[in-house]
Amino acid sequence: MKSPGGMLLTGIELDRASAVPLYRQLYLQVRKQILAGRLPGGTRLPSTRTLCKELELSRITILNAFDQLTAEGFLAPRTGAGTYVGDEWERRDAAADGPRKPPRLSSLGQSVHSLRSEHFSGVSYATWAPECPTSFLPSHPAYDAFPLPVWKRLMNRHLRQPTKALLGYGELKGLQRLREAIVEYVFDARGIECSLDQVVIVSGAQQAFNLLGMLLLDPQDGVWMEDPGHIAARIAFQAQGCRLVPLRIDDQGLDVQQGLRECPDARLAFTTPSRQHPLGTTMSYARRQELIEWAGRGHGWIVEDDCDSEFRYVGRPLPALFAMDPWQKVIYVGTFSKVLYPSLRLGYVILPEALVEPFCAIRAVMDRSPSTLHQATTADFMVEGHFLGHIRRMRALYQARQARLLEQLQLRLGGFMRVAPVEAGLHLIGWLDDAVDENAIARGLAQHEIYTYALGDYCLKRYLPPGLLIGFAGTPEEQAGEKVEALARALEKLGHRL
Amino acid sequence: MKSPGGMLLTGIELDRASAVPLYRQLYLQVRKQILAGRLPGGTRLPSTRTLCKELELSRITILNAFDQLTAEGFLAPRTGAGTYVGDEWERRDAAADGPRKPPRLSSLGQSVHSLRSEHFSGVSYATWAPECPTSFLPSHPAYDAFPLPVWKRLMNRHLRQPTKALLGYGELKGLQRLREAIVEYVFDARGIECSLDQVVIVSGAQQAFNLLGMLLLDPQDGVWMEDPGHIAARIAFQAQGCRLVPLRIDDQGLDVQQGLRECPDARLAFTTPSRQHPLGTTMSYARRQELIEWAGRGHGWIVEDDCDSEFRYVGRPLPALFAMDPWQKVIYVGTFSKVLYPSLRLGYVILPEALVEPFCAIRAVMDRSPSTLHQATTADFMVEGHFLGHIRRMRALYQARQARLLEQLQLRLGGFMRVAPVEAGLHLIGWLDDAVDENAIARGLAQHEIYTYALGDYCLKRYLPPGLLIGFAGTPEEQAGEKVEALARALEKLGHRL
Repeated sequence: MKSPGGMLLTGIELDRASAVPLYRQLYLQVRKQILAGRLPGGTRLPSTRTLCKELELSRITILNAFDQLTAEGFLAPRTGAGTYVGDEWERRDAAADGPRKPPRLSSLGQSVHSLRSEHFSGVSYATWAPECPTSFLPSHPAYDAFPLPVWKRLMNRHLRQPTKALLGYGELKGLQRLREAIVEYVFDARGIECSLDQVVIVSGAQQAFNLLGMLLLDPQDGVWMEDPGHIAARIAFQAQGCRLVPLRIDDQGLDVQQGLRECPDARLAFTTPSRQHPLGTTMSYARRQELIEWAGRGHGWIVEDDCDSEFRYVGRPLPALFAMDPWQKVIYVGTFSKVLYPSLRLGYVILPEALVEPFCAIRAVMDRSPSTLHQATTADFMVEGHFLGHIRRMRALYQARQARLLEQLQLRLGGFMRVAPVEAGLHLIGWLDDAVDENAIARGLAQHEIYTYALGDYCLKRYLPPGLLIGFAGTPEEQAGEKVEALARALEKLGHRL
Repeated sequence: MKSPGGMLLTGIELDRASAVPLYRQLYLQVRKQILAGRLPGGTRLPSTRTLCKELELSRITILNAFDQLTAEGFLAPRTGAGTYVGDEWERRDAAADGPRKPPRLSSLGQSVHSLRSEHFSGVSYATWAPECPTSFLPSHPAYDAFPLPVWKRLMNRHLRQPTKALLGYGELKGLQRLREAIVEYVFDARGIECSLDQVVIVSGAQQAFNLLGMLLLDPQDGVWMEDPGHIAARIAFQAQGCRLVPLRIDDQGLDVQQGLRECPDARLAFTTPSRQHPLGTTMSYARRQELIEWAGRGHGWIVEDDCDSEFRYVGRPLPALFAMDPWQKVIYVGTFSKVLYPSLRLGYVILPEALVEPFCAIRAVMDRSPSTLHQATTADFMVEGHFLGHIRRMRALYQARQARLLEQLQLRLGGFMRVAPVEAGLHLIGWLDDAVDENAIARGLAQHEIYTYALGDYCLKRYLPPGLLIGFAGTPEEQAGEKVEALARALEKLGHRL
């Protein structure tokens, strides 16, 4: 009959081809058995001689493993009486086996957890594999059209010498050369006059929204949000415990009068004036002035998310709110995610002077400046003229892709959804009949590997008909027909009559 | 006599060599003058004919600029009576000129702002130019020894095709290949057995501390902190409004008994068991077990910052706390900042299973996954064997650099400071006489471009003599003599007798 320690022998499997030394494999496996309760405290282990033979190990290997196990209290050698399993760890295992309670989180932790489940009730691409096609996903630029050879060349120039400037902790506000390029770009493209000092590099618009939420919002503060509106911004502000005030969007932009009626003393207004997210409309001058007027009169801040202002297909872009604001109440947020690529993780915030120092404090506490290599490459790309050329080419490409996809959608699905061209941005809205469940459609389509977003995910109060966000930037013109056909077939399989 | 609008002409300076179109230059400059109050509402502008002549511009350029200014309300044409400055913007300027009040921030924003000024009373390198030498700064690896050619080659392999996998939004938990490499590495090097699911990539340890603080801490929660201890971690937890419980460090590590006396129901304990930050000592097994015992009994979490465990010069590394914990109460934080380079901005968190989903929720809200290019390159570097080789080489290099610097410090400054070798990490402590003001020394040395940190910055309650943190990783052996000599001369210039 085997001694109880014989269990040890049956449980040990050594991999002699592994890079992990054998003594360490033995150590880890014995420890695992003890922690799992398979070797209870007081169990006597086989002699090292037996172990040598059975496991085909040298004595020194076994002693090395046992030394460490002894030092950690897993084994207890008794002089002249062999080696026993220690009892120090035994009762701990019982604790680990007890009924699992949900972990105790902070209120913030709990609320963020439930916020996310709530908001992504429809479809979330976060769970999809990175290889899956972008299909009709909004917010994805045309990856195939990114000038990677130029980018690679610029990047490699910085990879010649391992210096502190390249590899060390970056500057708090970000790389000066990149900030200078941004000052010049926003002056030229967005009419913004700001000093270098007001520009801070962040790892994207989402980080900016969260930092601004932390910096400016206390629990219960009112926040004007466009409805439908930006999901990540909304969650960032909700995470601070603030009270959202959903404002309707009309053809001029968010309804400032509604805000004045429902919550005149809001602490912050979030807006996407260049290209309302997700509807794609542009805020009128009159509405911009109303909004700035409100901020100037009270204590409200305006967070201007200027995403996709580069991709405007109709008319001349209006200047940024930041450029129209004489009170220094507007905080401008820009990102390189769409205009270059999302995984670059670079964005920027242009701050009113009074907020520069407090913003930098919270920025320094929360995270350090992004990769210097990426910042330096982006700066070169801008300074050496590639940036404006890329924007120009992408604008033309997206305009053509939009036109072609729109045409195909109208042709094949005109009876099922209404689509109209957007002035700016990377997606269309396919408006559906009132009776249709857009979430069910988005989920159903995703099962056929056709990805769209349900408009409902962006809505706080529902006053709009159901709709799907249909990205066009990732669909080459020559593929529009087949992709729309696949969409149509999937809809038919889901039981819809087209 | 000039018309009042004549002011316009004197203020306009056009740059005909600029890439900014002339109409836009004119538009921006007129707008600026109106916003600055130099052209009051109601001012009549010179006729376009006059402007054409005086500014040497074509009529269409002027009309383009005026159209936009009119649309934005800066100008108001009166039919048949010329063009006037609008009055819409006039009163706003007055508001902007009013007395500047400090901006209204959230409580968090205010407290972080003051926390930072408080903690960095001594010297902060955040304000130094990136070109300045690391000198004796702790936390900086040897940049000159980083194998940039290998790194560049691995990186370039990923820069061949612009794909969604490379350029698009990364996976929520980080690149799977990198997470797999980490699972293998921590098993081998730190005795940690965890599943792929428990590993989440972040942009560095600092982001990890902040996310964990948000996830786990409510205001007024007690937090055990090592004293002296990690500054960034401390501020991250303070930012959540928690109550710090400073625990003394003895030669075994943090004093768990003191914690049990002063705040047994703390919500979290922060510790650096492999290499106490900043003292450099190692936590004993007994102390590790006490700490884990405490966490297992109650509701406390342990955050284990395992920074610099790779750089141990004496004895075999002890396994991570995470590996000893049967209750799943330890959260392990690792970083590539020292072992590769800081600007890479990659770190990782290994979570107890119950915390994986809640942590991912807050991680997804706060920021997106770091650069895929960097993650993929790091994964290759690990999987293809460069990582362990690099650690081995750096360990030998740092050990030699420490020995040499120590020798030189004892030789030249033995009468002024006491130094002893550290078992692990990248810096020594130069202990000073009680009467000496370490902050004044650190500040004074910085003026001579010699950078050290004052130990006091790391202390909550002061029970240790004054000291300076003196990094050795960045000092090649052959430079140790001259660098110590420069340090000595600077001390003499500051009036110290050596």
